[in-house]
Amino acid sequence: MTVLFLEDFVAGQRFAGRSRIRLDEHSVKAFASEFDPQPFHLDEAVAACSIFRGLAASGWHTAAITMRLLVDSEFRPAGGIVGAGFDELRWPQPVRPGDELRVESEVLEVRPSKSRPQQGLIKVRTNTLNQHGDIVQTSVGNLVVPCRSALPKPTE
Amino acid sequence: MTVLFLEDFVAGQRFAGRSRIRLDEHSVKAFASEFDPQPFHLDEAVAACSIFRGLAASGWHTAAITMRLLVDSEFRPAGGIVGAGFDELRWPQPVRPGDELRVESEVLEVRPSKSRPQQGLIKVRTNTLNQHGDIVQTSVGNLVVPCRSALPKPTE
Repeated sequence: MTVLFLEDFVAGQRFAGRSRIRLDEHSVKAFASEFDPQPFHLDEAVAACSIFRGLAASGWHTAAITMRLLVDSEFRPAGGIVGAGFDELRWPQPVRPGDELRVESEVLEVRPSKSRPQQGLIKVRTNTLNQHGDIVQTSVGNLVVPCRSALPKPTE
Repeated sequence: MTVLFLEDFVAGQRFAGRSRIRLDEHSVKAFASEFDPQPFHLDEAVAACSIFRGLAASGWHTAAITMRLLVDSEFRPAGGIVGAGFDELRWPQPVRPGDELRVESEVLEVRPSKSRPQQGLIKVRTNTLNQHGDIVQTSVGNLVVPCRSALPKPTE
């Protein structure tokens, strides 16, 4: 698959994930045990009475799976997916054990760097959707992308 | 440890993490293999020539560890740490194998909900620091916190 340089990106471009990842109860609890050991991610009975009204995956688990789906997608900036940071990260719906997630990304903005002419930033919205098409995570990230024009030229 | 309701939070309050988590090379590579399998998180030689100039943990690994440090900290909202979303999430410095991370949080804003009088939102900046005191992650999150006044009253 072709990698994309800053010059290849334009606002409005969309990239779809090629794969899906299904979370089961074991993986939801395993991630939460290590990184987010709160009862609503670990115990069905407690979760039923919580704000989530049932066992829900940690948002950070959803974020990590989103990254994996993105790495496996057709979205291939040269130099890899390198996030300078996010302007927004939200989880509008809980992720449940059994949910199958996929991603969709859209380029919002392309911006050459003023201080580093060999690279630039692209602003990308990424939505993570479940099998019903509900958005379970939405983010707006700024990614560092190298310029093709900065590549070493072959000797003439 | 006492849990805190919306009425207990005020802007300017600070909470320090009680524990530290050290990342070793194995955990950096294990997390990246599952969630962010890009060469600069997996292979020293490739990482040396990458934008990170050496093996670096996935930002999502740092985010997940930050959550764990926060859950283990003295910051205890009633009902748990429930993020409605983040306005900002950045990784100003790479996290290296061997780094030991800790967190510090500050309440920026406390806001009762207009539509749901039994709860409100607090805006919290959380910094994740390494053993040198460098900020490796900074975030501004909005957390849902229940009001004490919404608790069921004992029968008189």
